[in-house]
Amino acid sequence: MSKAISTKPPSGMRDFLAEDVVRRRHVLAIVQRVYESFGFVPLETPTIENLSTLLGKYGPEGDQLLYRLLHRRDKLTRALDKGVKSEVDLSAEGLRYDLTVPLARVVANYNNLPTFYKRYQIQPVWRADRPARGRFREFYQCDVDITGTQNLVADAEVCGAIAQVLRELGFTDFKILANHRELLRALVAEAGIPAEQESLALIALDKLDKVQKEGVLKELSEKGIPDAQANGLLESLDRMREAGALERMCEGDGPGAVGARELRELFQLASGGPANDHLTFDPTLARGLSYYTGPIFEIQVEGLGGSMGGGGRYDNLIGMFQKQNVPAVGFSLGLERVLLVMTERKMFPDLAIGPELLLCRMAEVDASQVLAIASELRAAGLRVEVYADAVAMKKQLQYANSIDVSYVGILGPQELADGVIALKDLVSGEQVACAMKDVVGRVRS
Amino acid sequence: MSKAISTKPPSGMRDFLAEDVVRRRHVLAIVQRVYESFGFVPLETPTIENLSTLLGKYGPEGDQLLYRLLHRRDKLTRALDKGVKSEVDLSAEGLRYDLTVPLARVVANYNNLPTFYKRYQIQPVWRADRPARGRFREFYQCDVDITGTQNLVADAEVCGAIAQVLRELGFTDFKILANHRELLRALVAEAGIPAEQESLALIALDKLDKVQKEGVLKELSEKGIPDAQANGLLESLDRMREAGALERMCEGDGPGAVGARELRELFQLASGGPANDHLTFDPTLARGLSYYTGPIFEIQVEGLGGSMGGGGRYDNLIGMFQKQNVPAVGFSLGLERVLLVMTERKMFPDLAIGPELLLCRMAEVDASQVLAIASELRAAGLRVEVYADAVAMKKQLQYANSIDVSYVGILGPQELADGVIALKDLVSGEQVACAMKDVVGRVRS
Repeated sequence: MSKAISTKPPSGMRDFLAEDVVRRRHVLAIVQRVYESFGFVPLETPTIENLSTLLGKYGPEGDQLLYRLLHRRDKLTRALDKGVKSEVDLSAEGLRYDLTVPLARVVANYNNLPTFYKRYQIQPVWRADRPARGRFREFYQCDVDITGTQNLVADAEVCGAIAQVLRELGFTDFKILANHRELLRALVAEAGIPAEQESLALIALDKLDKVQKEGVLKELSEKGIPDAQANGLLESLDRMREAGALERMCEGDGPGAVGARELRELFQLASGGPANDHLTFDPTLARGLSYYTGPIFEIQVEGLGGSMGGGGRYDNLIGMFQKQNVPAVGFSLGLERVLLVMTERKMFPDLAIGPELLLCRMAEVDASQVLAIASELRAAGLRVEVYADAVAMKKQLQYANSIDVSYVGILGPQELADGVIALKDLVSGEQVACAMKDVVGRVRS
Repeated sequence: MSKAISTKPPSGMRDFLAEDVVRRRHVLAIVQRVYESFGFVPLETPTIENLSTLLGKYGPEGDQLLYRLLHRRDKLTRALDKGVKSEVDLSAEGLRYDLTVPLARVVANYNNLPTFYKRYQIQPVWRADRPARGRFREFYQCDVDITGTQNLVADAEVCGAIAQVLRELGFTDFKILANHRELLRALVAEAGIPAEQESLALIALDKLDKVQKEGVLKELSEKGIPDAQANGLLESLDRMREAGALERMCEGDGPGAVGARELRELFQLASGGPANDHLTFDPTLARGLSYYTGPIFEIQVEGLGGSMGGGGRYDNLIGMFQKQNVPAVGFSLGLERVLLVMTERKMFPDLAIGPELLLCRMAEVDASQVLAIASELRAAGLRVEVYADAVAMKKQLQYANSIDVSYVGILGPQELADGVIALKDLVSGEQVACAMKDVVGRVRS
């Protein structure tokens, strides 16, 4: 027996004990109910995807963070025999990195999906990132997406669903920052940055809230964008923050006008729904992922560095899996960030967990009789644990206290003869002989 | 854009579309409710475990089926630079293979768990097995385990929980086959098979229902067990099938008596609970996994090759992770097998899915007004989808039929002026002007 085995989960991974699980479930039940109220239907995709599905969708940084599965048996033997140069020779499958690319694959694979496929998906994803506060290597995403339409009603609906989830969880002060990739592209072009450097510029810009202007200028410079152009871009973004700037751009006929008008329309569409008061134009919002094409979103909550989720329109991603392009828009909520803030702000209600009643028996009582009584009470809806051994009652009560159960039911020969349970309220200390049929009511009262 | 990317999930993996997800949830909700009624509390462990946790727990065949994660970055570079001989040089982490070994790690890792840790765990596991009917590479297990006691009350409770789940799912004809490792060991020893070949013999015996006597004899012979001893073992198992054989063994003082008496006690303990009528002694039941030490179980259902789940007592596994041994017993239900049989037998009730109402608008109506009405109806509890475009009503109704929604709500200028929705019942074809406040009631009626 080796005593050297670590009993901790691997770096960036977590065990969820009972309290954690019920908190996660509390949030996920609300997410699911709200998503379904918007008419979304569930989808689940496998943990393991072919690398051909995953690679080239998230940009080079994303590809680096993919978990790859090692070849097995003959495949591994052949690879080792031929001589291995890189990971490419050793793996053909990887772990799900987000829920959007699997959705795109699914839309391309099944021809019986609705024209407008409104799906939600709540599953973990894996990224071999450096662990940090609120950043894990295994974490849950809660996505809603609508495929098949370019109509901004769809964009408004995914924003509405996310806003409604946050409201029902108890958040009041969140913002849904919104921007438009076409508007950004226009500003980048206007600053004199050539089209082939556009995505580098957006990736740098995406870090603005983390590294401030200086950090962005540094990265732009390192990527070969001249300071004059970099400064020009940041200045034009500053101008877009001024009151009325978006409106003026809508009225103009510059290259950013189409994006600006779409944003204006989106705000108008969302105005009667739950995202109203929360949607906020932010000209500096860029989003890191390369597949976005239209409106982009990010959830901002006071006191949380980084976002609680994000999304946007990606009209070309599904076309990477099939001949025909299919427009799509989606929004992803990050469960771990939601839990982090809700825990800090004590936003959880009391959540029921564990048995409501512990049945204990005296040594003279046969365990099978106690198990039969437990069966009856369980059938009546009670969560009942049975103490396995007929040890001293004091010891059984100590255990009851250690698991935080509220009631103990003691069974001795007298109770069995009388058809009652000696029901002890561990909070008040009161003990009464309770008829079997009254036990559930009394414990629940 | 490469058109060569496969859009199918990898071999042995599956996408679950909406109908699949709600069926899986239907089963899991019952599993969860029943497990909780027995006082079990939830646990979730990470998908990724250290290989040091996983290896050497499942036997050599199990180790072969583990999914291993490829080293990344520096670790991979260093490994490739040094020269790679086998998978050992290329991976240190793998995917969860079952839920029992992670439980053992958790029990060893947290010192604040209850003395009797009654946990349930419902999560997927991964095995790189050859896919077949009802056998996938990613599949869900639903486990209950009790650690910290050798009392057979615990064994009776896990059998009771599994039996109650199956009953509430609608199964009536299942058997919980039961045997005892000590009883088996006694028969193996009696047959003259030396102790060091015992686990080989049990692995061969485990395949009896698949390969029959001839197959078992062949495997035993291949493993170097003389035919006389192999035949002797099978004959003594046959004798154990005779009426009264278990009882006679209990009364004796042979090496199998202790195991036989434990089985008898277990049957007696379970007699007042849901496992009664289902628990059946099967002297040939062996279970493949090496860690079992006492009673072992397997669920047998008519018409299903292989089992729907299994379990048993494993008093030495947790001791592999810490100095102190902790006794434990558990039972695992296989979700995919349950679904397979329930689907074949049409055991599912009607399960609600997708929107209850599709809101459509005429071209004169502003989409933001429709979205505002959708918000109201959703707040009242209805699942509502909004048709994004104001195309011809015929086309919107075609879509409604394609997604199987029961009601369409049509909004034109007149309806908005009157504060009503033109509510069309797609089953009867009837259409009425319905006041906003009556919509939910009418759709739900």
